[in-house]
Amino acid sequence: MKRKKFLLNEKDIPQAWYNVISDMKHKPSPLIHPSTKQPLEVEDLSPLFSKAASEQELNTTERWIEIPDEVRDMYRIWRPTPLVRAEGLEKFLDTPAHIYFKNESVSPVGSHKLNSAIAQAYYCKKEGVTNITTETGAGQWGAALSLAAKHFGLELAVYMVKISYNQKPYRRSIMQTYGAEVISSPSMSTKAGRKIITDNPTYQGSLGTAISEAVELAMSTPNCKYVLGSVLNHVALHQTVIGLEAEKQMEMAGEYPDVVIACFGGGSNFSGIAFPFLRHKLNGERPETRFVAAEPASCPKLTRGVFQYDFGDEAGYTPLIPMYTLGHNFCPANIHAGGLRYHGGGAIISQLKRDDYIEAVDIQQLDTFKAATLFARCEGIIPAPESSHAIAAAIDEALKCKVTGEKKTILFNLSGHGLIDMTAYDRYFANDLTNYEVTPEDIAKTTKDLEKIL
Amino acid sequence: MKRKKFLLNEKDIPQAWYNVISDMKHKPSPLIHPSTKQPLEVEDLSPLFSKAASEQELNTTERWIEIPDEVRDMYRIWRPTPLVRAEGLEKFLDTPAHIYFKNESVSPVGSHKLNSAIAQAYYCKKEGVTNITTETGAGQWGAALSLAAKHFGLELAVYMVKISYNQKPYRRSIMQTYGAEVISSPSMSTKAGRKIITDNPTYQGSLGTAISEAVELAMSTPNCKYVLGSVLNHVALHQTVIGLEAEKQMEMAGEYPDVVIACFGGGSNFSGIAFPFLRHKLNGERPETRFVAAEPASCPKLTRGVFQYDFGDEAGYTPLIPMYTLGHNFCPANIHAGGLRYHGGGAIISQLKRDDYIEAVDIQQLDTFKAATLFARCEGIIPAPESSHAIAAAIDEALKCKVTGEKKTILFNLSGHGLIDMTAYDRYFANDLTNYEVTPEDIAKTTKDLEKIL
Repeated sequence: MKRKKFLLNEKDIPQAWYNVISDMKHKPSPLIHPSTKQPLEVEDLSPLFSKAASEQELNTTERWIEIPDEVRDMYRIWRPTPLVRAEGLEKFLDTPAHIYFKNESVSPVGSHKLNSAIAQAYYCKKEGVTNITTETGAGQWGAALSLAAKHFGLELAVYMVKISYNQKPYRRSIMQTYGAEVISSPSMSTKAGRKIITDNPTYQGSLGTAISEAVELAMSTPNCKYVLGSVLNHVALHQTVIGLEAEKQMEMAGEYPDVVIACFGGGSNFSGIAFPFLRHKLNGERPETRFVAAEPASCPKLTRGVFQYDFGDEAGYTPLIPMYTLGHNFCPANIHAGGLRYHGGGAIISQLKRDDYIEAVDIQQLDTFKAATLFARCEGIIPAPESSHAIAAAIDEALKCKVTGEKKTILFNLSGHGLIDMTAYDRYFANDLTNYEVTPEDIAKTTKDLEKIL
Repeated sequence: MKRKKFLLNEKDIPQAWYNVISDMKHKPSPLIHPSTKQPLEVEDLSPLFSKAASEQELNTTERWIEIPDEVRDMYRIWRPTPLVRAEGLEKFLDTPAHIYFKNESVSPVGSHKLNSAIAQAYYCKKEGVTNITTETGAGQWGAALSLAAKHFGLELAVYMVKISYNQKPYRRSIMQTYGAEVISSPSMSTKAGRKIITDNPTYQGSLGTAISEAVELAMSTPNCKYVLGSVLNHVALHQTVIGLEAEKQMEMAGEYPDVVIACFGGGSNFSGIAFPFLRHKLNGERPETRFVAAEPASCPKLTRGVFQYDFGDEAGYTPLIPMYTLGHNFCPANIHAGGLRYHGGGAIISQLKRDDYIEAVDIQQLDTFKAATLFARCEGIIPAPESSHAIAAAIDEALKCKVTGEKKTILFNLSGHGLIDMTAYDRYFANDLTNYEVTPEDIAKTTKDLEKIL
């Protein structure tokens, strides 16, 4: 047997990001200003984000957006990443399907998040910004941005969701090793945080809350910008390097995916692997390709949320986003896939879901760890709890092929490794993890007043 | 600036390992049987090790030993590894030196240890072995062997040094995720462990003790072999893929190293990067190249040990090895670089040191973490505490060049990443780490009776 790993050269690192909106017939509805209730313009966004990110956020026409040399140079630290045929897994499952994964775990911080962190830090630096701030769930995004900020000489403060701050101390240490300041969220350092702590002293935090805190800090600090690791269009844009590389690599493998799968929190890695392949579906060349977002059953916005304008954060500081949402006050269970604990699906993905270009499945926590352990033993790589949702969904597809006898080609994104999530595995092996059910009543509680926001 | 990273193709993964002994004028003295006091033959070793490993251990004549296809195929999971010019570090140090590092941290378990784990597991499988056992210090070797054992369908029991078992629970979890059994050493499961626990109930373990336990288990279990991650000749042999790749990559860079540096515990990663370059010194082509082993000041066998026949383990089960040693009863301080807490230098390295082909330096714990933090911030990769010894030594060399103005080319091996060692970094940032001094009296205590062993 010769292991099938498909490697590109550095010159194959994409020269431009792919802007999927340019090819969508139904564009997402506009982002709305939370006070004026008017569609957002670049000048509304640019006090908060870098000007370049603000422009990218609202760019609905340009198909390709050039990647600056400084960004591509940093991509060279670990890109291009390998595409691997998971033959060990196929053999174990005894499936006729071919399973491929794009290995984004090889970055020095262990996940795909660096793809956008580098771009955003670069634009901030170029525009003369000195300080940046962000939120992080499991810590993957915060770790990536810490490295990028240090590289470009920016000071960084990270609000880290309290449950992860306590459950994943290693990721906190990683951020500190790169020189970032890390604050457990909710914190007493912001109005938004103080209110939440006062209302609910045992609250374990959420991405929505941490975003509120970071946004508040950015708005009240001179020469400070806010940087987001998912959800928004410009983040999805930066992540398309994943799928653009994978497209070339699938060509090397002589196959084209029948189904493309990624885990889904705010959409960054899903967009990254899916959009470049999706463009061939949008233009009618590949109408049959399926795209599957694998979300946690405990935070099922795409499968069970409502489509409404909603805030991106808990406190209501951000623009209003047209999206599938569980409500910005939805508090997801404390699953170990901290990066997927986000209430909304973002504007692009939600529109694509409405138009049936993509599907979503929800996966229970215990199924993700079962899939993760199997993958580690078959393929040698211990996956992040987030990425394990994609693995579980890929295994489901492969097992369906076993029943039908179909030789489908399945591609999933391994968004990160789990070497810093071993306490979660420990708990799984100790039978100390559980599944979580979200009832229609839970969802109704946090979505019932959403239509009144606008 | 264009980042200088030198990548090879899969076809450049070496076809054969390099056996340095074949080129040594003064061969190491033979391994001695602990009971008969006679030089060891293959049949003395093969009850304990696989036959292939036993033959490789005593092979002093063949220069190149073919790498089996099954082993090369598994190498493809992550090999070839990149060679990187550390321009960020050079710039920070403001040195005229060129610093390169071979990045062995990209393996799925985060270190170079897989290079030998795969080979040894393969040979055991091929010879019909069903169970294997080993020891591990920080857990890098144990994690690597767990993956390799699972791949080849072998049951594995790992004795993990107690201090690391407690300090580095993530590495224990990694081994368990791959399906291995992990036992804290000293344990009550072996005679050797029981004796040590009885004599010294608070003993935190050492590699020497863990080796005793693993050897005892292997000798008393049917169809079970012992597998070692360092010190012995065949392990050094397997690691030469590192230096063989690096040699081609330095050619791509258009330079040849003036000094080759690696951290030193039992010699596996040092041998791996050094021996392929050393062959050009042994044959007179490159007489000026320096080779520097960077060992911890708390375990200074090459810089301050005695050259004697000594056991490889605490209990005296292993063959007697002619080497620089601190005595098999030497108990190193509880530094975080657990993989370097070994009392002896191995036969090949010790002979090369006697013959002045290689040098050694000892590095204090605080200096290693200072170097590690600087490296992380300049190059983006958080190094393992072990590898940080090599970084500290490389920085010393680069700073000497700054004084003299010499444009030396420095190559070091980044043997592993530190993402699973973040508690150590936490303690460093909290000023909770210390240096350790070893006095001549300490060393005299554990070396005074060594000459009586033979």
